[in-house]
Amino acid sequence: MNDHETGLTSYVLRLTDTLIRQGAKRAVISPGSRSTPLAYAFMNSKDMQTYMHTDERSAAFYALGLVKATGQPVVLLCTSGTAASNYHPAITEAFYARLPLIVITADRPHELREVGAPQAIDQIRMFGEHVKDSVDFPMPENREDILRYMEQRAVRLLSVAKTAPQGPVHLNVPFREPLLIDLQATAPVSRFQQQLVGDLAVTEEMKTVLETSITQSKKGILVMGEQATTLDKERFWEFAKALQWPVLCDPLSNLRSQVPTDCDDLCIDQYDALLKSEVFAEKMRPDCVIRFGPQPISKPLLLFLKKTCPETYIVVDDSPNYRDPIGLTTHHLQVSAASIWQQISVPCERTEYTKQWTEANQISTDVMNEDQHFHQDEGHFVRQFIVNLPDHSDVVCSSSMPIRDLDTHFQKTNRDISLFCNRGTNGIDGVVSTALGIQEGRKRKTYLLIGDLAFLHDVNGLIISRLQQTDLTIVLINNNGGGIFSYLPQASIEHYYEQLFGTPTNLTFHHIAAMYEAQYDAVDTTLAFEQAMQTDKTANLRIIEVATVRADNVEAHRSVWREIAKRVERIGD
Amino acid sequence: MNDHETGLTSYVLRLTDTLIRQGAKRAVISPGSRSTPLAYAFMNSKDMQTYMHTDERSAAFYALGLVKATGQPVVLLCTSGTAASNYHPAITEAFYARLPLIVITADRPHELREVGAPQAIDQIRMFGEHVKDSVDFPMPENREDILRYMEQRAVRLLSVAKTAPQGPVHLNVPFREPLLIDLQATAPVSRFQQQLVGDLAVTEEMKTVLETSITQSKKGILVMGEQATTLDKERFWEFAKALQWPVLCDPLSNLRSQVPTDCDDLCIDQYDALLKSEVFAEKMRPDCVIRFGPQPISKPLLLFLKKTCPETYIVVDDSPNYRDPIGLTTHHLQVSAASIWQQISVPCERTEYTKQWTEANQISTDVMNEDQHFHQDEGHFVRQFIVNLPDHSDVVCSSSMPIRDLDTHFQKTNRDISLFCNRGTNGIDGVVSTALGIQEGRKRKTYLLIGDLAFLHDVNGLIISRLQQTDLTIVLINNNGGGIFSYLPQASIEHYYEQLFGTPTNLTFHHIAAMYEAQYDAVDTTLAFEQAMQTDKTANLRIIEVATVRADNVEAHRSVWREIAKRVERIGD
Repeated sequence: MNDHETGLTSYVLRLTDTLIRQGAKRAVISPGSRSTPLAYAFMNSKDMQTYMHTDERSAAFYALGLVKATGQPVVLLCTSGTAASNYHPAITEAFYARLPLIVITADRPHELREVGAPQAIDQIRMFGEHVKDSVDFPMPENREDILRYMEQRAVRLLSVAKTAPQGPVHLNVPFREPLLIDLQATAPVSRFQQQLVGDLAVTEEMKTVLETSITQSKKGILVMGEQATTLDKERFWEFAKALQWPVLCDPLSNLRSQVPTDCDDLCIDQYDALLKSEVFAEKMRPDCVIRFGPQPISKPLLLFLKKTCPETYIVVDDSPNYRDPIGLTTHHLQVSAASIWQQISVPCERTEYTKQWTEANQISTDVMNEDQHFHQDEGHFVRQFIVNLPDHSDVVCSSSMPIRDLDTHFQKTNRDISLFCNRGTNGIDGVVSTALGIQEGRKRKTYLLIGDLAFLHDVNGLIISRLQQTDLTIVLINNNGGGIFSYLPQASIEHYYEQLFGTPTNLTFHHIAAMYEAQYDAVDTTLAFEQAMQTDKTANLRIIEVATVRADNVEAHRSVWREIAKRVERIGD
Repeated sequence: MNDHETGLTSYVLRLTDTLIRQGAKRAVISPGSRSTPLAYAFMNSKDMQTYMHTDERSAAFYALGLVKATGQPVVLLCTSGTAASNYHPAITEAFYARLPLIVITADRPHELREVGAPQAIDQIRMFGEHVKDSVDFPMPENREDILRYMEQRAVRLLSVAKTAPQGPVHLNVPFREPLLIDLQATAPVSRFQQQLVGDLAVTEEMKTVLETSITQSKKGILVMGEQATTLDKERFWEFAKALQWPVLCDPLSNLRSQVPTDCDDLCIDQYDALLKSEVFAEKMRPDCVIRFGPQPISKPLLLFLKKTCPETYIVVDDSPNYRDPIGLTTHHLQVSAASIWQQISVPCERTEYTKQWTEANQISTDVMNEDQHFHQDEGHFVRQFIVNLPDHSDVVCSSSMPIRDLDTHFQKTNRDISLFCNRGTNGIDGVVSTALGIQEGRKRKTYLLIGDLAFLHDVNGLIISRLQQTDLTIVLINNNGGGIFSYLPQASIEHYYEQLFGTPTNLTFHHIAAMYEAQYDAVDTTLAFEQAMQTDKTANLRIIEVATVRADNVEAHRSVWREIAKRVERIGD
């Protein structure tokens, strides 16, 4: 080995070793030349699991899915040039969804930057404010001080990524040719042993704030936004049971499944439909709200909170940049939610207010479960979908209509069903890849609920099925374009509506299914859909394409809401 | 109209008007809610041509193609959130390819930024160093000072984009709900009338440098990198004819087509093959090089120049950041190439050196045209492809192998054939969209030469064919993965080669053709390919899929190079 090769080999082996020791044990790699040394080192390490993906945009969302599934940092590796730019959408999502994505972009050495060399772009801090930290690493050299510096910097970057609020970080690593390393070499021994992060625990002052607020409140509610699937449900429900407050559970809180029997009354899953009634909303004004996780999906809930402006509004969020799009927060507790559930217990009596929520929730559930007569309405299909989900399954859901439909139709259940959705930025990009990453990370029966535009946007997510093992059922709601816009004021201006918002592509997806050798069914009735859901999956990929009609969706939604409003407005009279 | 609507309407109408008056008369729009006011204003203007595309990554490359085709700035418009992040790859390419892409991202107002609101990301300067300028615009208000400021800022941004070196700029425009404008209103009258940019003209000092260098040189060469298709070929060849120097023409210089008969000898199109011979390269050391445009594609040319290190190396580049990846420049002339061709004429005698280049060029051409016996070799197909191109046609070419194959096999011709390729960053992303944009902008017979990985990467480029008129023939060279890596040292390490670089997807693309209702042929012999090329196009999209074998490609290339080297090494002995 010459000096160059020795330096390069030591450098990439120690970097690989550092990543693994800091918990990043999976790497999603896109093919390219400049990244060769690290790609070889990853492939050659028995402790690093590697995945290949030729479309970097999808690769990054796949990695994001792996992070969501495992809770561990995941490495993304690409060559220099626009490959890196293709990571930007997933990095943005990871930043706002607070996920430790470790982005490594190989770069040209200084003498090939900004001089017209091929595949050379300015990669220094190229993801701007959308990563928590970004470092341009030194050139590999056969020097202990360079190795130590590089290792320390990598350790710190990983720690930054894993510190609350978690988020993506960026390592830009220059390599000079030749790019081959010694595959027989072993990583140089390192002094550094461990990096440990303390708990963000409840303080006495926080206890006082919570206990005072809770005991003084007569109409308190808990609002549960998205939670990691690792949340301690038992501990949470103990906390809620003591309070006897209604718990408004966003579908992504994952608290609508495996609800303990003695807390079933408290779990409110119908607030989205209920709060569409202004009369009901006015009656149910809370005086105290405690919110865990980000603001839930439901727009009626948002408007309800905004309008009623509760006297006490406590947001528990482990970031100094707590989230509150309506600016109502009276107290921000920067602490882990789990530590509150563990350390705070304020026993209260069940109030009339709580009982009214429970009653209304049951009424709404009954209306929802009455048979509706809109056969190509999405809601109908989504209800069938949920009913037919097997125990111990995962649902990945696209933003836009699918997550709203789930919010409306996912009723509390004893089954173990986990829900996932990219809500950091609510984009419809990268959803197929996120689902495939989640399935790979959790290895459960996984269903993707997605619309036609979102599916088409990330159809390249399926490429990975040609290079890795995959296992996914895709329920593709085809309403031929941008269905969500039907609910906006823009829909009333017919002049440009279809052209600007509807964007119907008139595509069906059996060709995609054939290309990727997926099992395929096309259905347009709930009966056929139910049969398809109950049929065994026989291929690594399965696509069930469901044809819906946008006008039916809108009409069905509105008709249900009218009926619910009519029935719940009498409560408490 | 209320005050909000009046303010919003005046603002977007005047912004639209300003864009149009500054030459941006085409807009590529992706559907979304926040961008509604501008989308309506663009659609409603008779002077703005609009295009819809649901995948923002492809939309941006389509816009880039339109810029390449028309030489005019083109607007890109999207909603807030990751939509904007999806523009990053094309923006990076536009920056390094120096193309005036006008990126408009709709944004949430300040009160919805960084507070956990949906589809809200930090969009301020989000493209970092990859745009020439980026401005966060003020909120629309019904105030003349806001309108004037906004207009002035927009005018200046457009001027920045159009000033050499041209490049992308970014306008971030916040909108507050409601987002509807008055479609009957007319743009408020503006004071500002015109923005005019002076010519970057030749100075006396430049004349002296050029005349001295040329007259003192005995072995001078002109190196012609990529040129816009609008270049004045006649004027260039007058300049070259006076010099009687060999002209090494990159395929993207567009100087290999429509070569004047009396300059045919000077047009050297075989240097990539010739300079692979070290003996020939050593004999042909130049003493003076004048380069127009960026460094050509050919790696042998790069190594030749680097090794021979000519005493005088003049780079004509209208940017202060002139491009020279090997750092040999002795003089940088920051001026437009056209003004040099127009104002400099230094008559010289044809030298023995020039004659040797011409002789060698002919020998290499003859070897190339002898029938080779590698039937699934890409070179063979590419030669057939070029021979069968009709007059007045455009070829868009992917980076990676296709452009290298064109460099090797595109022999000078009298036909009018223009070549395009994304060489700003040499990415293989967005190529399908770029081709569709170029076809739309030029309305000529257009052929896309592309490999399977690049095609798959931007398969979503085809979505636009469902929303707009398109017309394109795609010649898809399917070598089942990353063929270019077969030429790199990495190919010798079998251990991980296929997995890391080959990435074979084993896909064929007839399903994609069926999905997009494209005319489709699959061929694996040059005869079948020739027949396909000569068959009429009967659909808006056509795909000719050509199966090649990577090992044949490498072997064929190497065998031709050996033969050329053997024959040209005797020249001048």
